[in-house]
Amino acid sequence: MAGRRTLKAVLIDLSGTLHIEDMAVPGAQDALNRLRKASVAVKFVTNTTKESKRNLLERLTRLNFDLQEHEIFTSLTAARRLVEQQQHRPLLLLEQRALEDFTGIDTSEPNAVVIGLAPEHFNYQTLNTAFRLVLDGAPLIAIHKARYYKREDGLALGPGPFVAALEYAAGCTATVVGKPQQAFFTQALSELGCSPEEAAMIGDDVRDDVGGAQHTGMLGILVKTGKYRAGDESKITPSPYLTCDSFPDAVEHILNNLL
Amino acid sequence: MAGRRTLKAVLIDLSGTLHIEDMAVPGAQDALNRLRKASVAVKFVTNTTKESKRNLLERLTRLNFDLQEHEIFTSLTAARRLVEQQQHRPLLLLEQRALEDFTGIDTSEPNAVVIGLAPEHFNYQTLNTAFRLVLDGAPLIAIHKARYYKREDGLALGPGPFVAALEYAAGCTATVVGKPQQAFFTQALSELGCSPEEAAMIGDDVRDDVGGAQHTGMLGILVKTGKYRAGDESKITPSPYLTCDSFPDAVEHILNNLL
Repeated sequence: MAGRRTLKAVLIDLSGTLHIEDMAVPGAQDALNRLRKASVAVKFVTNTTKESKRNLLERLTRLNFDLQEHEIFTSLTAARRLVEQQQHRPLLLLEQRALEDFTGIDTSEPNAVVIGLAPEHFNYQTLNTAFRLVLDGAPLIAIHKARYYKREDGLALGPGPFVAALEYAAGCTATVVGKPQQAFFTQALSELGCSPEEAAMIGDDVRDDVGGAQHTGMLGILVKTGKYRAGDESKITPSPYLTCDSFPDAVEHILNNLL
Repeated sequence: MAGRRTLKAVLIDLSGTLHIEDMAVPGAQDALNRLRKASVAVKFVTNTTKESKRNLLERLTRLNFDLQEHEIFTSLTAARRLVEQQQHRPLLLLEQRALEDFTGIDTSEPNAVVIGLAPEHFNYQTLNTAFRLVLDGAPLIAIHKARYYKREDGLALGPGPFVAALEYAAGCTATVVGKPQQAFFTQALSELGCSPEEAAMIGDDVRDDVGGAQHTGMLGILVKTGKYRAGDESKITPSPYLTCDSFPDAVEHILNNLL
């Protein structure tokens, strides 16, 4: 364990940490409420390329979690920030329901490409349009670069392979905005006005959640739910600050030791 | 120039070297006839992912070149050889007209993936099918890995980006069969019963034709037609054995110096 700290903020992953599909992790709602009563800020951070903040809020509210839309920070949020900061007019290769997080963004005469998991856009013609933009100097912004994900009928391609295709074609490197990028964590924390050293991240993905957060200077807490597999805690260096059975145990540790 | 050799065979590129689209390079037909009258074997070698040998033969015959189908060796030929040697049952991601070069190959219950430039197959569902095969251990065989090519309406994605996508997704490396792979040149030469040291390659692509051939041990002759751009000859090490204005000059040099 690292030396004792006093936390000002806790970042919390959603899928696999607070819930698994349409089931809440047992005791997670109560644990969140207890954390909220302590003097610590919370923010919900997730890598999604297809769900808007409103979609995520609706699911969590249905599962009786107490949170508000402005407390959710996703890889789509991070992409929108980047587009706004750099005043890009993006070609948005995103699923329909993700587009609402880009409401108000000028997409005329695109001079940037934002790419998430968007099977309906992954055809030769649309990828060729994106390729020509990137070859002409448009930045390529990837929501994240996951190789594949688990679907009911088996594994399926993630956005990563299509990002890799455009990188290879145009000889460029995409700017990735989601976890485990340090900029993702620091952006989420900047809204809370605290530094990485004053924050912890709780998640089920040892590399994207825990490794990414720790590289940024935060404490990383791995939970053994969701995508966790035995031995995951030894897959990163340094190893997680703490590994817990589930979210309520992580909260218990924070309340007893880090506040 | 390298030390003097006596050639037994000359490999000749097609597009950009003997013809540019539907125009023969001036004097190329006569030059080919003169080469045929000397005691040297010829073979026509090309990187194509979409044209069968019959398609290529028809175009060249229309342009009054004297050649036969069995003298043409393409990247599709090389892929078929590999599939036969290793007894694969390939999923063929190829354009319709390229499929005739695979007539007779068993494609039931695929256990390999052969990929060329096939826009109609480059959709999420088909690429996902290929991904699952490769993840299960099926070899990924790429006709070639060109990043893009020039089309009437501008640059367009080549097969390379889609090969790169599957490599990234499945964490594998494709077997590339076309130029500039050494195996491509040695296979073409093995049919003529001669070694690389007894052969020269004439082509307009400094890397794929000349560099590839020279790495295999052949003499490489670069012609300044087709895709040649000023300064190309300095882009490879060692530089081309010879750089000529066009195919007839290359033949003249061979007849005068290498037979």
